[in-house]
Amino acid sequence: MQGNLIGAIEAGGTKFILALATREGEILARTRVPTQTPAECFPAVEDFFREAIRAHGAVAAFGVASFGPIDIDPASPAYGTFTTTPKPGWSGARFHDVLAQFGAPIVVDTDVNGAAIGEWRKGAGQGCVTLAYTTIGTGIGTGIARNGRSLMGFSHYESGHILPPHNHAADPFGGTCPYHGDCLEGLASGPAIERRWGRSLDQLAGEPGAVALVAGYIAHLASSLVLLHMPDRLIFGGGVMKAPGLIEAVRQQTAAKLNGYVRHPRLDEGLESYIVTPGLGDDAGITGAIALAQQAL
Amino acid sequence: MQGNLIGAIEAGGTKFILALATREGEILARTRVPTQTPAECFPAVEDFFREAIRAHGAVAAFGVASFGPIDIDPASPAYGTFTTTPKPGWSGARFHDVLAQFGAPIVVDTDVNGAAIGEWRKGAGQGCVTLAYTTIGTGIGTGIARNGRSLMGFSHYESGHILPPHNHAADPFGGTCPYHGDCLEGLASGPAIERRWGRSLDQLAGEPGAVALVAGYIAHLASSLVLLHMPDRLIFGGGVMKAPGLIEAVRQQTAAKLNGYVRHPRLDEGLESYIVTPGLGDDAGITGAIALAQQAL
Repeated sequence: MQGNLIGAIEAGGTKFILALATREGEILARTRVPTQTPAECFPAVEDFFREAIRAHGAVAAFGVASFGPIDIDPASPAYGTFTTTPKPGWSGARFHDVLAQFGAPIVVDTDVNGAAIGEWRKGAGQGCVTLAYTTIGTGIGTGIARNGRSLMGFSHYESGHILPPHNHAADPFGGTCPYHGDCLEGLASGPAIERRWGRSLDQLAGEPGAVALVAGYIAHLASSLVLLHMPDRLIFGGGVMKAPGLIEAVRQQTAAKLNGYVRHPRLDEGLESYIVTPGLGDDAGITGAIALAQQAL
Repeated sequence: MQGNLIGAIEAGGTKFILALATREGEILARTRVPTQTPAECFPAVEDFFREAIRAHGAVAAFGVASFGPIDIDPASPAYGTFTTTPKPGWSGARFHDVLAQFGAPIVVDTDVNGAAIGEWRKGAGQGCVTLAYTTIGTGIGTGIARNGRSLMGFSHYESGHILPPHNHAADPFGGTCPYHGDCLEGLASGPAIERRWGRSLDQLAGEPGAVALVAGYIAHLASSLVLLHMPDRLIFGGGVMKAPGLIEAVRQQTAAKLNGYVRHPRLDEGLESYIVTPGLGDDAGITGAIALAQQAL
């Protein structure tokens, strides 16, 4: 059966969003499944697509925007396979295991790359050539979309593990990363904030010092992204970014770090239109997964 | 006159290398001109190409690999124009001013992007998809070649201005960068080393502490490049890299910073074949300039 529809999966750390959509991206059926082990999760994925295809028609391509680490190199024999994730049961699991039966090409990318592509097409990145989407949440990661495709090298980027300047007098916390201690994820992710202060940054909004401290680490990432990618816009999403005053503080500290060195109309007169929140909110991931499938059509 | 040859310029801070080459890159004529003001330099460029073209034939395309900051966006009306360089006379100068008279397309990129492309084609980057070339010299800069083209965003990258962790107890030197003080260029460039110790790193080879300190800053850049670009190889060139023991120390400290987090055969078992010196030596720049012109053929 020659398909005409798109199957999309946003595979997050806590839930999967599954959707069947038209080639143009209109969603015909949609559900959510908790992220348990593949043995529990994949049958639910199979059931959803089997049922949705029966109701709406066959799939021409699948797009998957997934948590990682995962092999996203289309030339690799392990394309679509989780590598060394600590999540029980997922190391070695492969999206092809559940999707290949439907006989359509499968495009797999990371969740942040998917969100970057979604924002580039339909969100806060419209009109950009190069766009960096960063999530500051349970983890920290960045996807970069250029002309609607994600950039990668031999693997996807891992911006959360950059080691920022860390003033131990101002912030004696040693960090939570099991590999690096005080890398960005170890200092500024949601779990790092909870471990350091016993509360979320949202709950710490009355203490401007906490927001300023976290903003400084995020600004280190923002300025590194500017200097190593010169994107047309930086989008910061994820749960931590919802803390009041944080994005304003990130703009201010990024400007202070760059100190006028990078001259371009995009960065002039404050960074209000350069460092922004996502335009698609919670739909960036599934929009990106649909866009990934569209690349295969 | 329809040309069949390539005109190439490697425009460095102290000298220009000019070459006329075949389409295949064989150099037919070559000279060097000191980098004075454009008023002094451009007539010499004009004379060389006029004479070489008379002897060998017309040019089909020019390639220029230049110091910066310079507009390298082919879609920009100021493409090929120096922006805010402190070099006397060069702000606002444009390579088209001297080359347009020859009636061939002109491809302009940065010196490090040119070197990256040169190394990718004929040097230590052969066989790579994505390659990062960094110079540690009078300044610090990185060019990234992907499938023989340089990557850029709204402008070329400026890796030298990343702010690395700086332990003031171990290194009380405040840095030399007029914009950022202790950015990478302010701490680890040739002039920063001279200002801090009154000698070049070469001359400090007997003091392993100096080499280790500089290697730490370079390793911060190396690990940031891995995490934000995942290149297939990192090449480090420039005068500072000639100091004995430096590249070995950079490999060691980069491995320590990444601490096994990025798992890939390219990084396994030491970084001897991952972090390397240039394969073309002093010819990377002009080879890159020729490769830039080849893009227009």
